[in-house]
Formats: sequence, structure tokens, C-alpha cells
Amino acid sequence: MERITPRTLSGFMELLPADQVRFDRMVEIIRESFSVYGYAPLDTPVIEAAEVLLAKGGGETEKQIYRLTKGDTDLALRFDLTVPLAKYVALHYGRLTFPFRRFQIGKVYRGERAQRGRFREFYQADIDIIGDGELAILNDAEIPGVIYHTFKALGLKDFIIRVNNRKVLNGLFLSMGLQDKAGAIMQTVDKLEKIGKEKTAAILVDDFGVSKESAAGLLELLTSSQRGASPIGILASYMGKNELLDTGIEELLTVAKHMEAFGVPDTHFAVDLTIARGLDYYTGTVYETIIPAHPEIGSICSGGRYDNLAEYYTDRKLPGVGISIGLTRLFYVLEEQKYLNDQLLAAPADALVLPMTEDWEAAIAFATALRTVGLRTQIYGENKKFKAKMSYADKLGIPFVVFLGEDEIAQGKVTVKDMVTGEQEMITAREAAERIAAGVQAGRTAKPIRAE
Amino acid sequence: MERITPRTLSGFMELLPADQVRFDRMVEIIRESFSVYGYAPLDTPVIEAAEVLLAKGGGETEKQIYRLTKGDTDLALRFDLTVPLAKYVALHYGRLTFPFRRFQIGKVYRGERAQRGRFREFYQADIDIIGDGELAILNDAEIPGVIYHTFKALGLKDFIIRVNNRKVLNGLFLSMGLQDKAGAIMQTVDKLEKIGKEKTAAILVDDFGVSKESAAGLLELLTSSQRGASPIGILASYMGKNELLDTGIEELLTVAKHMEAFGVPDTHFAVDLTIARGLDYYTGTVYETIIPAHPEIGSICSGGRYDNLAEYYTDRKLPGVGISIGLTRLFYVLEEQKYLNDQLLAAPADALVLPMTEDWEAAIAFATALRTVGLRTQIYGENKKFKAKMSYADKLGIPFVVFLGEDEIAQGKVTVKDMVTGEQEMITAREAAERIAAGVQAGRTAKPIRAE
Repeated sequence: MERITPRTLSGFMELLPADQVRFDRMVEIIRESFSVYGYAPLDTPVIEAAEVLLAKGGGETEKQIYRLTKGDTDLALRFDLTVPLAKYVALHYGRLTFPFRRFQIGKVYRGERAQRGRFREFYQADIDIIGDGELAILNDAEIPGVIYHTFKALGLKDFIIRVNNRKVLNGLFLSMGLQDKAGAIMQTVDKLEKIGKEKTAAILVDDFGVSKESAAGLLELLTSSQRGASPIGILASYMGKNELLDTGIEELLTVAKHMEAFGVPDTHFAVDLTIARGLDYYTGTVYETIIPAHPEIGSICSGGRYDNLAEYYTDRKLPGVGISIGLTRLFYVLEEQKYLNDQLLAAPADALVLPMTEDWEAAIAFATALRTVGLRTQIYGENKKFKAKMSYADKLGIPFVVFLGEDEIAQGKVTVKDMVTGEQEMITAREAAERIAAGVQAGRTAKPIRAE
Repeated sequence: MERITPRTLSGFMELLPADQVRFDRMVEIIRESFSVYGYAPLDTPVIEAAEVLLAKGGGETEKQIYRLTKGDTDLALRFDLTVPLAKYVALHYGRLTFPFRRFQIGKVYRGERAQRGRFREFYQADIDIIGDGELAILNDAEIPGVIYHTFKALGLKDFIIRVNNRKVLNGLFLSMGLQDKAGAIMQTVDKLEKIGKEKTAAILVDDFGVSKESAAGLLELLTSSQRGASPIGILASYMGKNELLDTGIEELLTVAKHMEAFGVPDTHFAVDLTIARGLDYYTGTVYETIIPAHPEIGSICSGGRYDNLAEYYTDRKLPGVGISIGLTRLFYVLEEQKYLNDQLLAAPADALVLPMTEDWEAAIAFATALRTVGLRTQIYGENKKFKAKMSYADKLGIPFVVFLGEDEIAQGKVTVKDMVTGEQEMITAREAAERIAAGVQAGRTAKPIRAE
């Protein structure tokens, strides 16, 4: 037979079993965390009509999208979870209740140039709250709560949720007569950390015609959080310049004010006026989440407020606020940076049962009993030497091996071997179940990210 | 702005939020059940190189597959989870430990003609055990245990796991000199229930040259389980005719013998010699699972033993045994047949917190406290009339609404309204958390399929 060389496409993550356990544990925790905030699960097709997915069209999206035809239908694979959400809300509008809170964790596709750490198929984990016509600012304040508790639950210790409001930025630019240059200025400010304050000020003055005083004031304000000062006090002095700025400041203050009640400590939250994120999309609050020890990772969770989720499908105004975690990349980075917790039990089973007699009955019945109390149990039935059987358990990292030989069966007991300590003891089935349950408790509940 | 009509492709299931909760609960239970048997989770790409996916090629697969090109790469979407498993095992062979037990729950794609109850994108939930060179029959006996406990955990009451062994069938045909006509005969026997025993016997005699006695004996044996008799006793009298038949009978008896130890009761297990399933693929044990009250549904979980998982990718012999649940179709059928349990709490939240004062602080802090103890909690922050707020909770089926007005805040209490009984009471935050937890316990742990 002619054989095909098996391969997995480049840019497509495919994990070995132990890593898959770790990845799945992260997904499970994120699901639980999103659920506890009252977000409903959503699952939309991976394939949509190309016309629907590309309603907005243009730019990178069109180039990167995976398109295909089936029969005479022009199809495409989703490139994010936001466009399918917009379609979903527009399509099922009459059967949804607003504000509509949903989370979705699923694969998306982008045909980017393949390179280390870049993926063409990757998981996103999104939450969004969609309002019908309007949406209260309280929802914007909830989002950092979800981010904080999700990453804490994953085991991450040091991270900072940075929050800004696009209305503040646009209001500031408006007050300086720079509203038409907002995009270009933000791009300049974005480089501030790289090129320094003086050079940034020079560009603002020379290229954008900002006065020296205004440029200095703007940079002072924007960079206040980098200097460890809260921009909130400074912002107050800007009140009254225009309505947009006032609204933005008020929204930003409201979000910041409720962090404590949402359980987000000062150490993990910062108002940072340099954050803009997706200039053409977000219209109010914006979020990003960074790990200070690893600035090179960039934001691990970002999002913001938008005015109109589904404008390409409906004339209803559907404002929303949401965030997205790029899970595949996050997992890749955590592994690279040795952030994964090796205390998490990544074996496929808690116990391996070894029948040592011709009659498997007792071994099977014992395995069934372990499973009944929720212990993940394998039976090894292969006709191999004892050493090969132990090596199997060892390679998989299964923490307990249970033998049922003639002695054990005669006495109505089992022999349990702790694979870490090497200790083994003949005890009753009930005692064995208790010992195994106690022994795997810590490993099964360990957080996937290690404490620093 | 020109608007695109939002739509979802036909043959693609897209659920409303409450149904999505029910679907996800089923997936969660299946995951737990597979895990407790020691199967490792696996996730492979949805897209593979077309050459890899179509290594076996031919027939329906090639016609139904979704193909696409990106750059100059010929790609395809997976049409099952078995071919990706074969690729995975062949590719990562050196880093896997055998027998390799894995489960995978994921979407697959088949461009079938769209019709009611047929899906082009659907979830499969598979388990397989792959051996390196050989694989003990004990593994075949484990599979009905997994099927039984999985459907029990889902809440299904009356179902029967039917088991057969292809070696028995092929051995029988061999003993009659009919080994070359096995496929055609099985197709005839498959129609037995429809066309009746006499007509079937006539076809065997006229078309296949079987003697009248042999035809009668074969049909008697094959249909014994339909008559309520166990074929096991009858089978014993066929021993010694040829090695293949003997091996098949022995394997089938071994599987049947261990059902009790695996916790599968007699009522839910039957040896049935009329089952063949996938003639060109399975080589030993075969399984199907039916709901006697609804024979029209067909098998809800099928599979079997195969000799060589990855022969298109490697010359290593990798025998395996596995099953597959067509989850999307199962969910569709359960819903159609009113099998879904309306006692399962399908609301996105256990409690809705309503701030009734200008200051949201106390309401947010209370919601945070409920979340800390695992209660799924939404805060309603919209500026709406009281009636609209209650209607929101009502439409979503949220079982408890909690008010925090001035009185409550002044007394350090909250008012909890039970949305089912209509009762409401002002109590402490701790009492409220306990009451809500007790009130949602049954709904959150209810099985997704209703007890008959």
C-alpha cells in the first residue's frame, strides 16, 4: 500500500495528551468563571456564508480569511467570534432577552504568515454584553471583575488590567482641535515607551501643529500612570472643556470607582490613558491585561465598548461591551515562559488497576467501584511482563497502581502502590478508594498556571 | 449603509441560549464519563492537508468533503474524528504510551444533502483504545461499560447496547463456503426485519446457493436474540467448525461474561448476531445502542474493533476499538421526541441582583459574594422601570431575584424573591446565599434527559 506521510499543518496547534489535559483545564476554568458572572454559553457554526462574514469587508480580514465553495455557495471560516455574534443577535433578535450576556469559546481561522507563536487556527474565549438601544455603564465596570477572577482562578498572580475610555482621548483631542488627527496622534503616543517623551513631544509639535504647552500637558496626562501617579486626579482638572470629554471622564471614574465592590484589588487595576485599542471599533471603555514581568507577551485579554454591534445586518442600535482572550497563544506563551504548573495532575487516570490472575472479574469490579466514586480509573489488560505494566503507569504519570492477585482476591483486599513514594500496602477496596482520592486531590484541583 | 441579511447556513445547528445550556450540559457529562474511564482528552485541527484526510479516499467521503485551498495548499475539513486520530497516532507514535486511550468531542463536516435532522456540521463524541501491535479483548469488554454509564449519567433510562463479533459472522459464512458473499448476505440479513424470515431464506437459497437447511439454521441463529433467546447457548454448538468462528465466539463470550463486573445490567445489554456495522472496517467486536421505544431513531452510539487504525500512514500495526456518539443528531432527536428534561435549570444565572439605589456599591458587593460561593449571578444595571426588570428575570427563567433598596442597605440585609413561588423575604446576605444555593441545587444537577 502506498503510504501518505502523516503531518499536521503549520500554524495549527496539536498537543500531546498531558498538555491537552492542561489546556482543557484552562478552558474549563474559564467556562466556570464566565458562567459564574451569568454569561450564557453560545456556539455558532465555524462556517458561515462568505457574504455574511465579510459584510464589513476590507483589509487584512479579506486577505487572511479561509474561503471555500460547496456546490454554488460561497463560504468562509470565521476569523473571530464577534462577527458571528453580531449575526446571531441580528438573526435571533426577537427571541433574545437584553441585555444579552454570552460567552463563547471556540476556534477561529486566520491565514496569517506562519511563524513561531503565530497560529492560523486558534481558540478565542470571548464575553460580551449586548444592549438593546442602550447599555448601562455598570456593565463596563463588571468586565474587569470577570478578567480579574478568571486569571486568578487560572492561577496567575501578577497581572494588571489597564482601563481607558476612548471618549476621554477623543475629548482631549477635540479640546485641542486635533479631532481629525486622533488616529495618527495615538499611533505616535503608542510608541512613547520606545522613542521617549521628548521625541514624541517634538513629533506632536512639528507634524501635528500642537503647541509646545499642549503637547507637554497631553503627554504629562497620558503618561501619568506610567509614573505611578493616578491620572484620575489630573483628569478632574480637564472637566468642562467639552461634553465628550466630560462623559468620558465620568464613565472612566464610574468604572474605576466600583472595582473594589467587584473584588478587583488596586494592585491589579490601573487607569492608563495611553491605551487606545482598535481605533475604528471601540467607542468608550477599553481594556487590556498585561503581565508586568513579561511586557513582551503583550495584552493577554483585551476589549472594550462599541456603539453598534450589528450595523451591517440590522438598523437596530445594539451597543455592547466585551473582551477576548486569545487562548491558544496564551497557552503557548505560558508554556514557553515555564508558567504552567507541574503540580497539576496531567495523567489520564488517577489509578491503574492491574489484574494479576486469569480471572479479571475482581479487578474489573474494583475498577468499577473506583469509577463510581469519581476516580478516573484505567484497567490494564494487555498480556505483558510486570515490568512493562509498571512502565506504562510510570510513563503516563498515573499516581496509583492497584494489584489484584490471588492473595488479594482470597482476602477480599487490594494492594495499592503509591508511584511517587513507592510504598505499597494491602488494604480493603474502600480504604484503597479513600487513599487514592486523598492522594490525587491536590493534583486534580491544582491551578494550571503556577504561583510565582 | 447597505445591509446584509443575517442568516445561518442550512444544515448547521445554531441553538438559542437555553438549548445551548442543555447541549453543553450533555457535553460536560460525556466528558466526565469518558474521563472517569481514564481516556485522555484530544483535540486535533478541524483543517488538515487534503492528501492526509483523503489517504483512504473513495466514495461518499470524497463527494461530501469540504475542500479549500489557501495559497497553494490543498486543504479539507475533517469529516470524522477517526482519520485525524489515525494521523495523530502515526505522527506522534514515539511520544505516546500504548494502549492509548483517548476521547475527542468536536465538530466534523459533511456536505450531505440538507434535510430535516441531517447536519453538515455536527459534533461527534468518540472514544478509542489503540494498541501497539496487539490489543487485549478486555478492552472490547470495557466499551459497553462506558456506553452504559454515559447514557445513564445523561438520564436516559431505557436503551440496549447490542454487541456482535464480525469474526462470528465471517466464521459462519466460511463454514458454509460463503466467505466471498459475506457482504451481500449481511445486506440481505439486515433487511430481515422488513422483508421477513421466509423471503430472506428464499434469497439466500436462490441468489447465494445456500442449502435450505443451512439458510434455516443461519437465520435461526442470527435472529435468536430477536426472539428473546440468547444466541450464546446456540453459538456453543457451532464451535469447532473453523478457527475464525471459534475465536469470534470466544471473544464474544468474553465480552458478554464481564458485563456485570463493568456494572452493565442484563436489561441493557444483548448479544445480537444480526449486527454488522461498517463491513469494510470492523474486524471483531461491533456495538450499537438503541432506544427500544424509538427504533426509528436508529443507533445512538456505535462502533467496534478494527485491525489497523493507521495503515494509510504507517506500516506499524495499530489495532483499536472505539465508539462514536453523533451528538448533534442525538440532541436534535431528543428534543424532537420531547426527551429533554425541563427540570434542568437552563437559565444563564441562578440569581439576578437589582440595585434599587443610586449607589450600586452594596448590590455589586453582594453579587460578588454570591459568585464567590459559586452561584451564577447577574447584576441588572439598566435604567428601566421595575416591571421591565422583573420581566427580564422572568423571560430568562432566573429563579431568584435579589433587591437592594435603601431599607435593605440600612439594615445590612437583602430581599430575596423566589420567582417560582413568588415569596419574598428580607434576610441577611449569608442567609440569601444559602437559600439560593438550596433552591437551585436540584435544577443545576438535573440530568439533561428526562426520566421516562
